[in-house]
Amino acid sequence: MNKSLNTNELKERLMNLAGNEFLELIEDIHPADILDVIRESEEEKAYLIKKLPHWLLADVIEEMEEEEKEEFLNLFTDIEQGNIVNEMSSDEIADLLLSVEPDKANKLLEALDKEDQEEVKELLTYNEDTAGGLMATEFIAIKENMTVAETLTYLQTAGIDAETVYYLYVLDEKESLRGILSLRELVVSSFDIIIRDIMHENVKSIPAFMDQEDVAVIFEKYGFQAMPVVGDEGDMLGVITLDDIIEVVRDEDNEDIYRLGGLNEGEVIDGRARESVKSRLPWLFVNLITAILAGATVNIFNGTIDRVVILASFMPIVAGMGGNAGTQSLTLIVRGIALGELTGENARRVFLKEALTGVINGAAIGVAVSMLGILWSGNPIFGLVVGTAMILNMALATIVGYAVPVVLKKVGVDPALASAVFVTTFTDVCGFFFFLGLATLFISKLT
Amino acid sequence: MNKSLNTNELKERLMNLAGNEFLELIEDIHPADILDVIRESEEEKAYLIKKLPHWLLADVIEEMEEEEKEEFLNLFTDIEQGNIVNEMSSDEIADLLLSVEPDKANKLLEALDKEDQEEVKELLTYNEDTAGGLMATEFIAIKENMTVAETLTYLQTAGIDAETVYYLYVLDEKESLRGILSLRELVVSSFDIIIRDIMHENVKSIPAFMDQEDVAVIFEKYGFQAMPVVGDEGDMLGVITLDDIIEVVRDEDNEDIYRLGGLNEGEVIDGRARESVKSRLPWLFVNLITAILAGATVNIFNGTIDRVVILASFMPIVAGMGGNAGTQSLTLIVRGIALGELTGENARRVFLKEALTGVINGAAIGVAVSMLGILWSGNPIFGLVVGTAMILNMALATIVGYAVPVVLKKVGVDPALASAVFVTTFTDVCGFFFFLGLATLFISKLT
Repeated sequence: MNKSLNTNELKERLMNLAGNEFLELIEDIHPADILDVIRESEEEKAYLIKKLPHWLLADVIEEMEEEEKEEFLNLFTDIEQGNIVNEMSSDEIADLLLSVEPDKANKLLEALDKEDQEEVKELLTYNEDTAGGLMATEFIAIKENMTVAETLTYLQTAGIDAETVYYLYVLDEKESLRGILSLRELVVSSFDIIIRDIMHENVKSIPAFMDQEDVAVIFEKYGFQAMPVVGDEGDMLGVITLDDIIEVVRDEDNEDIYRLGGLNEGEVIDGRARESVKSRLPWLFVNLITAILAGATVNIFNGTIDRVVILASFMPIVAGMGGNAGTQSLTLIVRGIALGELTGENARRVFLKEALTGVINGAAIGVAVSMLGILWSGNPIFGLVVGTAMILNMALATIVGYAVPVVLKKVGVDPALASAVFVTTFTDVCGFFFFLGLATLFISKLT
Repeated sequence: MNKSLNTNELKERLMNLAGNEFLELIEDIHPADILDVIRESEEEKAYLIKKLPHWLLADVIEEMEEEEKEEFLNLFTDIEQGNIVNEMSSDEIADLLLSVEPDKANKLLEALDKEDQEEVKELLTYNEDTAGGLMATEFIAIKENMTVAETLTYLQTAGIDAETVYYLYVLDEKESLRGILSLRELVVSSFDIIIRDIMHENVKSIPAFMDQEDVAVIFEKYGFQAMPVVGDEGDMLGVITLDDIIEVVRDEDNEDIYRLGGLNEGEVIDGRARESVKSRLPWLFVNLITAILAGATVNIFNGTIDRVVILASFMPIVAGMGGNAGTQSLTLIVRGIALGELTGENARRVFLKEALTGVINGAAIGVAVSMLGILWSGNPIFGLVVGTAMILNMALATIVGYAVPVVLKKVGVDPALASAVFVTTFTDVCGFFFFLGLATLFISKLT
């Protein structure tokens, strides 16, 4: 079907081929596949780290998870480590240095070529979660007075090292971005055309300090393969490529999902129990406080429950359904905030829609629970009490599901992080309060 | 800083420029920006749809949300609609046809050029969520005996229409994929080199029937800008590009988040209340059934609550904390399944880790709640009862949080869809059962 090798075939060949055959093989293999082989057994690893050239080891390290990199590098002598790191791209080196011990980072930085060293130092000044932290400094810069043929010739000598050659950046003598040209446009143009005449001057660029989530939104809007990053003066600093953005999207989505589920975003699925406990227990204690608040609310009405014990059976229904309605609303809003879909313009309309939805859903579930209450207790007043409490709690839950993430965002807290705790506290406490409070008011009709 | 126009400046120019100036402007503007202007007011829309050329209208439609497209197209005459759709790429046409009424779809299909018509019909045979449903049929095919110079000349005539020219696909006379070459490698090679000598024969391709979630995992692993899609015979059918994958990732992540939150994945943040009710109410009724089960469990023990009313205050704590622990575990597992991180190999280890985590967290929270129970009730036996129930419920919750998504996956149900309901039912029912059951056993020590 196609000539792609599976991990076993590749292992076979990597272990047995030598000389030119080996070089031809590795030219053609994706480093992610070599990493699969290396991960599979210590024996292959020990053999391959001696046999693979430094440039390929650099590519393999770029494919690794952050936490694997340092251990792997330490299998080499200091000099080898320097050679390998020198083959990596500037953004990958910066990420690596951030993930190792400071001492180690300094040593690796020392081992870099002068020019790389400065670029990496510059990159390290940017926050990891910004455009500056994502960008690579390798890109192709050309001048506007070059011809297509001159540019092609230039690429034949200069092109190999750049992070992306899919776009060519036209810079002036001050490094300011004057225009942009896709490689695609270059190759479909006649050889004697001047770059100035085919470049696009209306260039979309990204400020170096922009948050990576906003960078992802821009990439998603325009679908570019790569975008230039510029400094305050409009000077071009580097490029961000689309494959970096997929990682950003996954990471940000994962963070939202984990936080909504009460997990620390660093927790990995096949980690150790000790790390899972460390990730989850703090959240559970926060939730315990809110659960105790709910319990204390119930406690106020102990006298009422003592007289009408069937209330206890309906307590989890009223509180739980409020929790569900609140979670629905908060999920939509947290996501809307993350994706930039909840704006100043539509906020009021969304709020009214949520409130109305809460009332309608509350009424539907309220009527159902009310009938159940009458059947179960044989008392219409009991049905009225539980139905009213349900409508009130579900309507409030939906409004709170809107309000909590919006307020958290305003005060600078990630809505995904804490919304669920606040919303559940509200729905539990208010649910019990409405239900048991109403029951207390109508106690004479319930006993 | 840079020459990018904001929406108002762009509107200004689109409305006022004419002739060559207008043509130069629109050459340089991204269709997503024109869409912003069109969305802003009916007046601009009415004017621009007359003024913009068909190829650009086609690009603008490609940027629209599915639900906008048909309404927009209907602003044009049938003949204009045919011309516009003819300018769209095959995968976008197929998506469009799937989103409009069948009558309309047939009409548009009729209006296509013969060749496009067949390609689109072919695309429509694939399920939307598969590689075949994602791919475009426009790509650059070359022969292995061409030189670099011949290939560049060929691209200058043929390149414009292809979805991606970043890779060139080397096909034999049977349309079988023999090799691949990136545009980058082409332009950095000397003009007289033969394609055969620089192409990669170890090509990674994607089977047309592969699920889009698996396609995304492959793209994330290798970071390619585009990948070829092949049929059963190894014949090349089309290409999938990285920007399609970002949409897949977002959609799949969104689906998981929405389903975990009890929302229908089609719900939009600024939709109408009627649609929100339709999306959420069915879920709420499913949840109501589980809440009633929990209430019925409490009901069994009414006699016990009647004698020890403080039990009612601790009920929400025991059930709620179990729910939280279960949600943590299920979030991790649902995500691990979606991202392919939970495998046959690590399943046993992950299960044991989850169980151990559940016991440790249960013990920690159990001890805290036990002490609270003693303080609150003044009765050590009560503390023992509530603490034991808590440990049992949280340990079980964590195990159930692992088991439910795994079992749902096995029986072919999306774990994100129904896991939360099952897990909460378990934690509520079991929480009440453990707690009130133990209290009933020790009733003589509690009164």
